[in-house]
Amino acid sequence: MSTPVTVIGTGPRRAGSCSPSRLSCSGGAGSRRRSVIRRSLAGRLRWTPHMGVSMRIAQLAPTFERVPPRTYGGTELIVGLVTDELVRRGHDVTLFASGDSRTAARLRSVTPEPIRYGSRTDDDLTHAEYLQLANAQACFLAAAEGEFDLIHNHAGVEGMVLAATSRTPVVSTMHNPFTARIQSIWDAYPWFHHAVSAASAATFPTRGALPPIHHGIDVDAVEPDRRPRDIHDPHGYLLFLGRFSAAKGADRAIQAARRSGRRLILAGKIDPHDITHVRSAVEPWIDGDHIRTVGEVGGETKRALIAGADALLFPIEWDEPFGLVMIEALAAGTPVIGFRRASVPEVIEDGRTGFVVDDVDEMAAAIGRLADIDRAACRRAAEKRFSVGRMVDDVEAMFRSVLDRAAVVAG
Amino acid sequence: MSTPVTVIGTGPRRAGSCSPSRLSCSGGAGSRRRSVIRRSLAGRLRWTPHMGVSMRIAQLAPTFERVPPRTYGGTELIVGLVTDELVRRGHDVTLFASGDSRTAARLRSVTPEPIRYGSRTDDDLTHAEYLQLANAQACFLAAAEGEFDLIHNHAGVEGMVLAATSRTPVVSTMHNPFTARIQSIWDAYPWFHHAVSAASAATFPTRGALPPIHHGIDVDAVEPDRRPRDIHDPHGYLLFLGRFSAAKGADRAIQAARRSGRRLILAGKIDPHDITHVRSAVEPWIDGDHIRTVGEVGGETKRALIAGADALLFPIEWDEPFGLVMIEALAAGTPVIGFRRASVPEVIEDGRTGFVVDDVDEMAAAIGRLADIDRAACRRAAEKRFSVGRMVDDVEAMFRSVLDRAAVVAG
Repeated sequence: MSTPVTVIGTGPRRAGSCSPSRLSCSGGAGSRRRSVIRRSLAGRLRWTPHMGVSMRIAQLAPTFERVPPRTYGGTELIVGLVTDELVRRGHDVTLFASGDSRTAARLRSVTPEPIRYGSRTDDDLTHAEYLQLANAQACFLAAAEGEFDLIHNHAGVEGMVLAATSRTPVVSTMHNPFTARIQSIWDAYPWFHHAVSAASAATFPTRGALPPIHHGIDVDAVEPDRRPRDIHDPHGYLLFLGRFSAAKGADRAIQAARRSGRRLILAGKIDPHDITHVRSAVEPWIDGDHIRTVGEVGGETKRALIAGADALLFPIEWDEPFGLVMIEALAAGTPVIGFRRASVPEVIEDGRTGFVVDDVDEMAAAIGRLADIDRAACRRAAEKRFSVGRMVDDVEAMFRSVLDRAAVVAG
Repeated sequence: MSTPVTVIGTGPRRAGSCSPSRLSCSGGAGSRRRSVIRRSLAGRLRWTPHMGVSMRIAQLAPTFERVPPRTYGGTELIVGLVTDELVRRGHDVTLFASGDSRTAARLRSVTPEPIRYGSRTDDDLTHAEYLQLANAQACFLAAAEGEFDLIHNHAGVEGMVLAATSRTPVVSTMHNPFTARIQSIWDAYPWFHHAVSAASAATFPTRGALPPIHHGIDVDAVEPDRRPRDIHDPHGYLLFLGRFSAAKGADRAIQAARRSGRRLILAGKIDPHDITHVRSAVEPWIDGDHIRTVGEVGGETKRALIAGADALLFPIEWDEPFGLVMIEALAAGTPVIGFRRASVPEVIEDGRTGFVVDDVDEMAAAIGRLADIDRAACRRAAEKRFSVGRMVDDVEAMFRSVLDRAAVVAG
């Protein structure tokens, strides 16, 4: 099913060697080294990357949640979708994830179950991050044995640190925001990365950057609610879905809904450190009728809640890397009204699949114009722009570009 | 001041290569590889490890707390003492720690201040462990450039994971308990480790294990309270000093003190997850007179509290790797009454520097026999067995043994 490919010489940087983000090398020890590489490559590179040839791919997942996640876990959801689709397309995929994961790929696990960070175990595991490291190390040790053509790292920093000495090409998908605090890890990371939106990409280092890839979901599995909508239906509702934090803006959704005179349902979890915010800015407005909360939702309940909504409100005030819930709404035919920040203008087509607004007043006004949005257009946008197929097309093309580049640098 | 030494070939394991914990190798590719190593070593090993020659040592600290710690932080305290004493003895020491650390060594930092794990920053650093990794990586990158003869890892798992590909010898001091959850990281760790007590050592893997080294503190800086004691002095008190957790046993100290009819002062912090235990098992007994709490203490207050106590009670019910507070008490001339568990019987000389007991009743009875203990003997035991000098004698001997072994394996 797969043909081994050994791409060498583009990994750990040394004096005079090549950066994988440069396609040409010059001078010094690098030249001597390249000629050695060229000779050894001649005998070893039996495979020319091109469309239609399967690759041996390691998918490195976090171990904070299983793949796919039970409820929350955007990263693990995407890892699961990418992994299974790559297998379906004939690639030889090994998934490094917690042992209770469900996958079409070969599963390797250092832990039977995921350990959420911050949680305490009774066997002296003081940091869930250590399991994440053990999982990443298992992946890189297998790679060092020549098992993979490429490592796709979804485990963030834990994967990047170990990638510093990897000779197998690595692509890291940056599911979380960039933080300059760990700049030194970026400086030592010799491989590739990509963000999940153009807005997020702009915050990451340019060295090794590949074009961003928007997330996709299993749109076919989402049943849109095709009943005709009456914007004045007293049973109609707007939806807020996410953590009740200041960044996500449950409070701003409430104010927009109140100003528009429409009903709002809030669904999501309350983290301990958000309790003060919730007490002061959310709870006072809950009346159980016009403004209601339904706690955490998942599975069919979540899907029905999204499909039944007249619109999803997404009044974020943080740099959300992507915002999966927006495309979950579009897949159900539900328009999205979001704040003009981070990925939002990339995902929402203003006036066509929802509205991009600047503040609570504009959000309230946009709610009044929801009749202008064709729910079928929302669904079509999801099918065209945010499907698993489109996402994995992009991922496959990225993999081939990485292997092409690695081969060019090496050869 | 220092002569570079390059010890090669004992690091990352490969088929047919040598384990650093075995002093002889046999067969296969290992033999061929050894002869290559021997040839290259001949030209490179310009230094024979022996007493009196300085070493180029990296001290890899955690970044959860600065070195030395402001208040809590046993690991960072020991790192500071070992580092400064190694410098005093003429070694070339580089300390990898937070930028606010105070050290006689060369300081290298990836972060200006420590970030305690579990704490939240406002710049999207989601895990303090990532700074710890960045710090460890900085150390191993410098080592890969040939900067050190040896890396002394106090940063636990973060250091061990990166040590898997290190060609510079590594010794890890296991400040925290072993957990089987990360067995795979141990399996991939090709270097040395040692525990801080024999009891703790028994819980760690034997491969790569060096003899345990008890902690030491700056005994000379502790002023013992030499006033004559009257065991019936109504102002006399027993002391409990530590977190108010079920494992540390503030509740058991209270019961022992009550049964003995003596006064007890409890000092320490209450972690959020210990609140239930404290409410039910500690608070009901606090009367502000016979049983008193004084909150967290540090610096001179802590030293005075320890020196003034008739005894320290140490009724642990967990596998404390060492228990620094016991030797802080001995240095002040204060006897220790501890439960027979983990390191306690190694630190307390039963009947001479305190008592080793099996339960609360025995602890109460031992309190009644405190007049049998000579406080000067406690102080002398601290000077002899738990000084920085003794600790660093052991550490230096361990370093030389590691470099000798590495040279034997390589040569």
